Amino acid sequence: MFVKTNIMKDTALIIMAGGVGSRFWPASRENLPKQFMDITGSGKSLIRLTYERFVNMGIKPEHVWVVTHKNYVKLTQEHLPEISLDRILGEPMRRNTAPAALLGSLAVHKTIGDKPIVMAPADHFIANTEVFEDVITQGIRFVSGHDSILTIGIKPEYAHTGYGYIHYDEQSRLPHNVYRFTEKPDKISAQKFVDEGNYLWNAGIFLWRPRVIEESYKTHAETMYGLMSGSLPWSGGVPKASRLEEVYDLLENISIDYQIIENADNVFTIPADFGWSDVGSWRSLYDLASKDENENAVLSGKALLEDSRGNFIRTKEKLVIAKGLENYMIIEENDVLVICPVKDDQEIKKWRQEVINNISGDYE
Amino acid sequence: MFVKTNIMKDTALIIMAGGVGSRFWPASRENLPKQFMDITGSGKSLIRLTYERFVNMGIKPEHVWVVTHKNYVKLTQEHLPEISLDRILGEPMRRNTAPAALLGSLAVHKTIGDKPIVMAPADHFIANTEVFEDVITQGIRFVSGHDSILTIGIKPEYAHTGYGYIHYDEQSRLPHNVYRFTEKPDKISAQKFVDEGNYLWNAGIFLWRPRVIEESYKTHAETMYGLMSGSLPWSGGVPKASRLEEVYDLLENISIDYQIIENADNVFTIPADFGWSDVGSWRSLYDLASKDENENAVLSGKALLEDSRGNFIRTKEKLVIAKGLENYMIIEENDVLVICPVKDDQEIKKWRQEVINNISGDYE
Repeated sequence: MFVKTNIMKDTALIIMAGGVGSRFWPASRENLPKQFMDITGSGKSLIRLTYERFVNMGIKPEHVWVVTHKNYVKLTQEHLPEISLDRILGEPMRRNTAPAALLGSLAVHKTIGDKPIVMAPADHFIANTEVFEDVITQGIRFVSGHDSILTIGIKPEYAHTGYGYIHYDEQSRLPHNVYRFTEKPDKISAQKFVDEGNYLWNAGIFLWRPRVIEESYKTHAETMYGLMSGSLPWSGGVPKASRLEEVYDLLENISIDYQIIENADNVFTIPADFGWSDVGSWRSLYDLASKDENENAVLSGKALLEDSRGNFIRTKEKLVIAKGLENYMIIEENDVLVICPVKDDQEIKKWRQEVINNISGDYE
Repeated sequence: MFVKTNIMKDTALIIMAGGVGSRFWPASRENLPKQFMDITGSGKSLIRLTYERFVNMGIKPEHVWVVTHKNYVKLTQEHLPEISLDRILGEPMRRNTAPAALLGSLAVHKTIGDKPIVMAPADHFIANTEVFEDVITQGIRFVSGHDSILTIGIKPEYAHTGYGYIHYDEQSRLPHNVYRFTEKPDKISAQKFVDEGNYLWNAGIFLWRPRVIEESYKTHAETMYGLMSGSLPWSGGVPKASRLEEVYDLLENISIDYQIIENADNVFTIPADFGWSDVGSWRSLYDLASKDENENAVLSGKALLEDSRGNFIRTKEKLVIAKGLENYMIIEENDVLVICPVKDDQEIKKWRQEVINNISGDYE
């Protein structure tokens, strides 16, 4: 414990919270980005859960930065009141993750020096926080002593074409050497990767030291690095807001995966299994949630289930008593209750529109 | 309309509200008799709905009496604040309907004279109030001009052994002559009655004038009549409360059906179909409720149903969105939500006990 705490005390966290508001109705009523929503029904937003997950493992609140769109700075403050405004970096326009990661790393570097950084998306779900903590601790230890980029890899469940695939050397010692990183492959390649076995999904959680990642940008994104580090005036760890828009206007719109990770030769990975989901849908939450002996998952709320299998329950106020339900999801939020087969969760968007169009009341 | 209103202006209503608290969980949390519960989700209790049903057809609030157990007098006042305490007759002990009907009729007689009376249970559900109003109006007209007892008959759906059966002369003009009245027959008799056709269920709604029913009691319940009319001191239309217990202690515990209706020879009936239920269960409410083309009944609340048939929805706050549900009931009340096959509604009692025993919180 002593060693872990010491490492964490010197570690910085960058929460990537720039995602656009995808809708998760009925849990969201406005155009709220997912990271600010209480998807899990825990009473906390995903960004709050992300923040607490890291602070609970010893990262100091004053070592936490958030990179988000400027429109969400206020919302971020509300969800993370512990973070001073200086460390909530509001991007003037969307330029994907390559600029955001560099902006955050430069801010950390200029504020507390070349300390290890863990960078994590604000809107992912982690089921097993103990395993997660172990993996992150191991990773921080590694990047503290190596000039390497570390990415956390998830064993792929199927040939998802929306993720990055990490081809790694299973025989190497941990963290494993990465042969190659392929962002968003086509279906055939994705299937090949899954079949071959020594591929992992990139969870979007990166670890590095500022000096190391800056070297990578100098090599693989020279213009971007020049603009962010040279043209942009910084006052301590805070970029000058009035010039940020000018600089962002000139930046390429590209993800860190394409720009840096695919090209860098110092990428390592730790395969991990901590129940990860990027929370694309209600169903993805069910897949992750812990289940009883009848495959029922009660994510939040209380339930008495009889002759019921494979159901997903996420309520806020209600005790649910159900009989004879198989593979249904029961989602309660505000004044809406959805009861439908888990496999039909993608229809929620359609129902939302029907309700807004046809039923009196404020359901938007 | 003129004629109807005139008749109703002179008509008295006796609401029979002495029923013991059967439980209708989760709509009831305490040992509340059904008549005081908002079973239909309309925002009104059954006794309130009963009261309004008659007042809306022209009966004056000051012509409404309630006979109930003395423990429910306060509750009755809360639900029917229009009724003065003088007209809420609190029985000191349970003696079934024969004494209650006589007590109410004597009170009416002593207060406003020999006016037509309609006597109705507080805890029944009537789906079609227009048809109901027509039948009652017809009945009031009849008992105003005839020294008869009139009962409203419901076409039996099956051989229920808990009701009274009215054997009537189909060929006679309306109201029909009643050959015989049989309270709570055995299964074989009940089936025979249903098969023969010219039998009706007694809905427990009686019409008469005080003078007529008192004559019946004199003939068929001489002791009871003597105690209630002779021994019991009345001050105007109000029985002396201090003596009521003494008198009730001496009364037989018997229903008006056994005591009077089975024996009287001046009983007539009007067969009616106004969607009647004595609300024995959630299922009985579903059977009565109006349904859409897919046999879905939304008793209260709002619903968007897809690929769903035969469901019964009774919510209070929630908009229900359901897909792929067949023959389920969805009951929401306070912080409990029940989703189960309609046919399993009798299991609610068991679940209630399980919840109270095993789940923390106040669900009793």
